[in-house]
Amino acid sequence: KHDSIPSVDTFEDLSDGESESSSSMAHKGAVKLDSSRVCPSGAVYNCENGSGGRTGFMVPLENKNGVSEGVTKVPSKILDLLDGFRASKALFVASKLKMFDLLKSKGPLKAVDVASELGTSVCGTERLLDTCAALELLEKTSQGYSNTDSANTYLASDGEHSLHGYIIHSNDHVWPLFTNLESAVKEGSRQNHRAFGKKTEDLFNDYFQSQEVKQRFMAAMHSIAHLTARDVAMAFDLSEFKSACDLGGCTGALAHELIQIYPNMKVTVFDLPEVIANTSYFQPTEQCPAPVTFVSGDFFKDNLPEADLYILSRVLHDWPDEKIHVLLNKISAVCKPGSALLVGETVLDEQKTHPPRAVLQSLSMTEGKQRSGSEYQQLLEKYGFTNTQIKITGNLLDAVLCFK
Amino acid sequence: KHDSIPSVDTFEDLSDGESESSSSMAHKGAVKLDSSRVCPSGAVYNCENGSGGRTGFMVPLENKNGVSEGVTKVPSKILDLLDGFRASKALFVASKLKMFDLLKSKGPLKAVDVASELGTSVCGTERLLDTCAALELLEKTSQGYSNTDSANTYLASDGEHSLHGYIIHSNDHVWPLFTNLESAVKEGSRQNHRAFGKKTEDLFNDYFQSQEVKQRFMAAMHSIAHLTARDVAMAFDLSEFKSACDLGGCTGALAHELIQIYPNMKVTVFDLPEVIANTSYFQPTEQCPAPVTFVSGDFFKDNLPEADLYILSRVLHDWPDEKIHVLLNKISAVCKPGSALLVGETVLDEQKTHPPRAVLQSLSMTEGKQRSGSEYQQLLEKYGFTNTQIKITGNLLDAVLCFK
Repeated sequence: KHDSIPSVDTFEDLSDGESESSSSMAHKGAVKLDSSRVCPSGAVYNCENGSGGRTGFMVPLENKNGVSEGVTKVPSKILDLLDGFRASKALFVASKLKMFDLLKSKGPLKAVDVASELGTSVCGTERLLDTCAALELLEKTSQGYSNTDSANTYLASDGEHSLHGYIIHSNDHVWPLFTNLESAVKEGSRQNHRAFGKKTEDLFNDYFQSQEVKQRFMAAMHSIAHLTARDVAMAFDLSEFKSACDLGGCTGALAHELIQIYPNMKVTVFDLPEVIANTSYFQPTEQCPAPVTFVSGDFFKDNLPEADLYILSRVLHDWPDEKIHVLLNKISAVCKPGSALLVGETVLDEQKTHPPRAVLQSLSMTEGKQRSGSEYQQLLEKYGFTNTQIKITGNLLDAVLCFK
Repeated sequence: KHDSIPSVDTFEDLSDGESESSSSMAHKGAVKLDSSRVCPSGAVYNCENGSGGRTGFMVPLENKNGVSEGVTKVPSKILDLLDGFRASKALFVASKLKMFDLLKSKGPLKAVDVASELGTSVCGTERLLDTCAALELLEKTSQGYSNTDSANTYLASDGEHSLHGYIIHSNDHVWPLFTNLESAVKEGSRQNHRAFGKKTEDLFNDYFQSQEVKQRFMAAMHSIAHLTARDVAMAFDLSEFKSACDLGGCTGALAHELIQIYPNMKVTVFDLPEVIANTSYFQPTEQCPAPVTFVSGDFFKDNLPEADLYILSRVLHDWPDEKIHVLLNKISAVCKPGSALLVGETVLDEQKTHPPRAVLQSLSMTEGKQRSGSEYQQLLEKYGFTNTQIKITGNLLDAVLCFK
């Protein structure tokens, strides 16, 4: 009876375009998380009796049982959406446990040793390690698990380009907000009261209520600002500006990048006193061409430092129109003719559905919103800024430059 | 000053490979959620003054300011992981609000009308609709939002291939478990007590404590079983078997598929009494070639119905080794020579990191586990099954056939 599906001598890997020897058991080609290709007719392996040895054989099924009707293939996009939260959480927990730090310093390591170092269960640790390998964040070999280059660069907490702070923020702050997305859509508002049991007037009051949360939030903003600073700083030739003031510039990540590119530029960071008081931890250790000046104040209320170029990077999308009105009015009033305003944001296309990253961010339901290029242009023109130029970087942040 | 970046007469869309006219504002090419390509040098649009008219111009930046150093591009895989949970939740909430049902029957609709029909806020609804359009689940035109074909087929709750039940289960049950993944990894166990405030002995007791949760779970299992039934039923030529018994066959989705393909096969579903009592809602409305017989019992304790072919689809991965031992021992004991066992599972590769979907599922931390092809073979051989054949379908479920 077991001979009803005869073996054939050819082995094809339909799904991956790679040739495998007939003794290989690999089925790497089976649906990957991000693959849009599926294997249309599948593969049959005919297992031989005996110990470890197996010979892989594949026959297109339709040739064998005469049934040629296809099965329903769920689009890979929908499958990715069904699994996306699991994959995000695996990254978040591995980051939270500092698994990537451990493997950066001591890898390759076996699951049992990772568990012992992290104080976690062997079974849970092995499942998490395998998941990270499946997501291509780790490599798994007979020696154990080790970081990919990407993990060393972006996921370990110590790297210059580390996203660790942003990942922890995503886990601790954004995940609970999204847990309450249904209420957010019903009510049209952020769900801090549901997620964290308190209602605050102001977006940033949430972050500044405890020192721990403030540090975490600053680390998150620093990691994302550091990673996007070069995009914003290099989007336009800014060499004609003698001074720049980064409003809401937080730890000075963008300011330092500007000084690297324009060593003669005098750069000031203007941010809330509770932010400025905590910036020292985030300062670069290497030699800088010139110092960044930190000035504390509230850009809605206090006088702004003088500058030829004002910068608002990742600021406008957070605030409602009334507050943006106050802020842009103030900036416009202090700008001399020829001065400029540089805005760092993800710029939506005119249909306001691309890039998805920016649209997904708007689901956090702050009182602010994401804008398209023409919306930024119109907004800035209302406050006397002209000659708007938009640079789509294709990276995390785009840039808009306009002149008074 | 604003002339410092002169416009050029060429427009290139570096990121998407599509030609756009110079008056187009499209920047569809900016990073998509699932794109691995990024625009290496970006695009500069030079906005002209005036009303709506804008001319798009692009200059490779390096030609203009002399800075040729590239910016750091975060790998798209990591960006996808950072956003994955937001995208999952958007799908879940849209499904929960039955937005896809509304648009299937009445679309295209404007955001304000969707909000009015669903009783949700306009602002939150618009953000959710734009997100679903960004994720390519909806189409957005000047007429409003409408379902893609995929959304009509898989996301509306009424379709034959609807995943609605599984999506609601993912939102209501799996998301809360993953919220507690850090504890799960530390403790090596499922987190039902943290997620739902109760600890139960048995995986399925959770689902069967309330009628509402049982119905939701059965709808989830039905939707996924229905979608995978054809893969499992068609994996091998089963025409020689006169009778089959699907152990844990739930609503009979696979059983009905078998009867469609093998009209002369006598098919029995064996499942717990509380499941069998609720199967009527899920029976197909169309004419069937033959009836499916439903028999209630506990496959760990009670006698199994007689059959030439036993089936365990999506059963083995849920249970610990001791319980699998009891179950396979019982099946082996009632199998006559020539009888067979068909197993429907996602089969891991030998490194146990592919497909990612199966690895991610194992993070739910049931007492069971996912297995590779050789592990299934060894497991089945222990209970006297031989001539194991494995079919990798490239779809949601693979199939393993072995003979007594």
